[in-house]
This record gives sequence, C-alpha cells and structure tokens, in this order.
Amino acid sequence: MKPTRVIQMGLGPIGQRTVAYVVEREGVELVGAIDIDPDKAGKDVGVLSGVDALGVEVSSDADSVLRQDADVVILTTGSQCAAVASQIEQCIAAGKSVVSTCEELASPFDAAPELAARIDRLAQAAGVVVLGTGVNPGFLMDALPVFLTSVCRRVDAVKVERHQDAAIRRLPFQQKIGAGLSPEEFEDKRRQGMIRHVGFAESIHLIARAMGWPLGDVEDTVEPVIAEQPVSSRFIDVAAGKCAGLRQVGTGTRDGERVITLELEAYLGHPAPRDTVTVSGDPAIRSNIAGGVDGDVATCSMVLNALRAAQSAAPGLRTMADIPLSHWYSE
Amino acid sequence: MKPTRVIQMGLGPIGQRTVAYVVEREGVELVGAIDIDPDKAGKDVGVLSGVDALGVEVSSDADSVLRQDADVVILTTGSQCAAVASQIEQCIAAGKSVVSTCEELASPFDAAPELAARIDRLAQAAGVVVLGTGVNPGFLMDALPVFLTSVCRRVDAVKVERHQDAAIRRLPFQQKIGAGLSPEEFEDKRRQGMIRHVGFAESIHLIARAMGWPLGDVEDTVEPVIAEQPVSSRFIDVAAGKCAGLRQVGTGTRDGERVITLELEAYLGHPAPRDTVTVSGDPAIRSNIAGGVDGDVATCSMVLNALRAAQSAAPGLRTMADIPLSHWYSE
Repeated sequence: MKPTRVIQMGLGPIGQRTVAYVVEREGVELVGAIDIDPDKAGKDVGVLSGVDALGVEVSSDADSVLRQDADVVILTTGSQCAAVASQIEQCIAAGKSVVSTCEELASPFDAAPELAARIDRLAQAAGVVVLGTGVNPGFLMDALPVFLTSVCRRVDAVKVERHQDAAIRRLPFQQKIGAGLSPEEFEDKRRQGMIRHVGFAESIHLIARAMGWPLGDVEDTVEPVIAEQPVSSRFIDVAAGKCAGLRQVGTGTRDGERVITLELEAYLGHPAPRDTVTVSGDPAIRSNIAGGVDGDVATCSMVLNALRAAQSAAPGLRTMADIPLSHWYSE
Repeated sequence: MKPTRVIQMGLGPIGQRTVAYVVEREGVELVGAIDIDPDKAGKDVGVLSGVDALGVEVSSDADSVLRQDADVVILTTGSQCAAVASQIEQCIAAGKSVVSTCEELASPFDAAPELAARIDRLAQAAGVVVLGTGVNPGFLMDALPVFLTSVCRRVDAVKVERHQDAAIRRLPFQQKIGAGLSPEEFEDKRRQGMIRHVGFAESIHLIARAMGWPLGDVEDTVEPVIAEQPVSSRFIDVAAGKCAGLRQVGTGTRDGERVITLELEAYLGHPAPRDTVTVSGDPAIRSNIAGGVDGDVATCSMVLNALRAAQSAAPGLRTMADIPLSHWYSE
C-alpha cells in the first residue's frame, strides 16, 4: 500500500508526540512541519520532537509547506473550532485532507453549524476529508459507546464514566484540571472557563446524532475534587485541602429525560481509574476498561490510526461515527 | 430520512426474529419475504414470525420478490459461503444490497478467495454492498477488538474471550455446542464437523487483515465441557458426566508467534459469562463486558443496525471493518 504522506501543523506537546509516532509507524511518512513559533522555525522537526533528525525543517510559512505533495495534514494547534477554522480552510485550499485533535471539531454541527457547513462544503468541493479525533472527544466517550450499541435492539440511555489518575498525564493537562489550586482559585478559573475539559458537548452531540435523538438541554458542570491528603505528580505537589483535579458531568436530555450522561473524574491519585460505558436498553451493556486508557498516548495514536480510515471516507467534514472503522495497523 | 426497504430471505429462527425487529424499528420497512419451505409459502410473514400480520406473504419465488423496489435483502439462510453464494448473486443481479448473518461471509477473502473476488466484482459492478455481520463473527470477537486498537501506538497481540451461559440461547445453538451429549457422542459429532462454532477463522482473518499481519497457521480446536453436576435449560437436561457445551480455541500465528487468540466457552450453567478483549501493546487494553452479550438478540440487532452503514459504504463485498461505524438508531 502507498505510504500516507503527512504534514504536521502545530508542534506543541501533542504535535511533537504525534511526530514521534509518525516516525515509528510503517506506511506513514512525514514530509513537512509547520509552527508559527519563530523559535521553532528552522529546527529539524525530529530533533524538536525528541527523536532522530528527519531532515525536515519546521517552517512558519504554512502556504509554502502546504504546496508540497502530501495526503493529510495533522492539525494540533488548538481546541476551539473558531481558532483553527482558517488553518483548516488553508489546508483544504491546498487540496489536503485534515485530521485534527481540535476537540470542538469532533462533532461541530450543533455548536458551530455555520462554520461546520462551510468546512463541509469546501471539503466536498475539494474532494478532501476533514476529521476531528482524539481519545476524548473522538473515542472513549462517544465513538466507542456508539459502536457498542450495535448489539442493541433498543437503546434508552447512554452513560460514560471516565475516571483517571491525572498524575500520569502531561503538565498542561494537570493544569487544565486545576491540580494544586486552592478551592477559591479553582472557582475563579472555572468561572473564567479556564478549568474544564473541552469536548463534552461535542461527545454528547455525536452520540445523540448517531442515536437519532433530538436533544433539549445540554449541560456541563465542573467541580473540584479536594485532596484529603497530600498528593503529588512529577510536576505538581498538592497539599491536603487543595484541589487535586476535577469532576465534570455533562448531560443531554430528550423530552425532559436525561438520555446521555458523561462523567469525567480526573485528579492526581485517583485510586481506581477506569473507562466505563453503560448502555441502558435491550440488551443492557456495561463495558469496562479497568485502569483506563492513557490519554496522551491514546490521542496521538487515534490520529495515526484514523489516517487511513479518513482517506477512504467520503469527502466532507466527517466524524468518527461516519468514517470506516479506525484501528491500529502496521503497514 | 427515507426509510430503508428490506426483503427478508430465510425464515428460520434468526430470520423470524429479524422480522420482529424490523417491524418495531422506525425507518425500516419490510416489503417482501422469501423462504424455500413450501409450508411457509403463502403465510403472512408477521404471523409466521410471531408478531402482527403485516400484509406481506412469504413466497418461495425469490426472483419475483426480488423484482420489488427494495434497498437491502437480509439473508439468513445459512452459515457457509458456498451455500449462500447463489442467493447472494441473485440479490446482486436484482440490484439489491445484501446484509447477511452467514458466518463465513464475515471475512471470506482468505478461506474462499475466488468466491469472495467474484461477489466483490459483481457487487461493485451493480453498485451494491454485500456485508456479513452478526454478533460473532461480526462484532464481539473481531470488529470490537479491532476498533479498540484505535487508541494504541503499538499492537503485539489480540486475545478475545467469550464466555457464555448457553442456557439463554435458542435450541439450535444449544444443540450446536453439544449440550446433553455423552462425551463419545460429542467426539463423534465433533469429528464430523457438526459441533463447532462457525466463524473463528473469519474473525481471526478479519483481525489480521485490519492489523496488517500476514498469518501463518490458523487453527481451531474444540473440546467438550463436562457437567460436574446436573444442569438444565428450557430445552435440554444434562446429567452429570454428560456434555454441557464446548470450549473452542482459535489461534493465528505470525512468524511463529501466536498473535491472535479467540476463546469461546459456551455451556449450560456457565457461572461467569463475559466478553473480554485483551490487546497487548502500548497501551495494553483490557475491555470487559460482564455478563456477556445475549447472542440471539445481538445477532439480529447487528443486522438491523448495519443496514444504514452498509448502504453508505462503497459498493463491493465489505466487512464490519470497512463500513462506517454501525450503531443503533431510532430514525
């Protein structure tokens, strides 16, 4: 099979890790790298990413890199659709498909309908695919529960619980969940929207669209998990009484009934990490991944594993629920 | 969305149950029914299937039923490709897509390469999709583990354990696993190939193809599970010392290493039913559905839930690993 030629756009922690995964993956070839940071421009993207030199320099001139022959741009520059939309359009204009970790892109049709329609139209016209993926949103709290309903004669409700020990995650993640803050600092940042997992609404809408459920209210609440005793990660020490992380619950209702519930508990020292899907229906299904799934490894792997499925999907703005089954592959 | 118009071909226990599920499903409409049994011809397919009269008579004249306007034929007439191939060709010739519970159709490219190539060619030429699905093969021991590898940076091996209490299954299934036989009778029937779960090789090949693993040996062993004390189902009483069911282990090796292991334990009175997937790799994943999944409900549900995904797939002979994500849907 012809190798997939990729351009990496965005070289933060997730972008760098993705580069490392691209290098080790048979059948995928890195041909270009883009980052707006002038300190990164001119550096070898392999060295910057902590692997061997690849002979590919990071460039801040996106247009010129995008003119190269490539199949897919891996876009890891931001979490909000509005922030990455112009980059996506730039990729489409260059005739490249896009696979992105942008959380809001995982299912943007409800929160950003006009932007989604525009990207879909442009992508279809250019014959390319635009896909938002990642471990969450993109898999554990949406695509996986959706796929599990395949065995059901009837589905009444879907609940997903993602409980994780944030100590194994990278620093920005630990900061994003408020680890180390006082309850007052946590509350301040929560009000400013700085502490929350981005993507709950997208996962809820992805599930609802697949099930054919028109939703009423979609809500999302965040509260701190307070450390009862001191707890530490490689990066942060949390004293007793401070915040170890967060508990976030997202819900979607239909005709006044709660039909979708997503619960994320992410804090340093969680004693029983797990990823659990409960489908209420006939048959009822309860699927559990004890220990949970490492989010950083998984998000970058999701990107790599979606490359081939995305290329074989129908052109347009797609989600993990309408591309062919994604999976690991060795060649 | 336009309803999916289906023709049911084959009205054994699985076909009848599928009819019942079609009737209750929004967005799916039964327009024809075919069975070669003269005792069934002329009967209302709803009444025959234990639901209300539908005004659709069972006919043994497949050609005339297939001339009707319909999108998909649900084919539940047999487990072997060779036995259903001419029926599939008849459906394709009539311009109909096919979704079938034929176990060997789940991934026929290795065991029946010429037949698979022929069906693929005919289906592509006719612009229709042919898909084999079901709970196993079709989901629990192949498509689900394949999808779970999406989060992996590296996969070394896949193991699936399906442990079930066969007492909840229909009589033909309980007979197929040898429940009630003496060990000698079991061994006789095993040698004749009458006692085994059909589809292990197909699941193994489906996984191997997705992973990109060329396999060496693919093997499949069947042994009885002897009842230590008397055990009963609605249909069969098993005395102590007789067979309560079977244990079947399928393996696929690559470069001499066992990389795929499927283990089915199906017997009356299994104390701890479960469906477990273990992916060895980075990260390692262990997913468990405690209690397991009811196979009869699930197989018919898989068929219903794959209808829409099959219609949106690229024409040809497809598997659950290359159609868009299948899932339950209400409209």
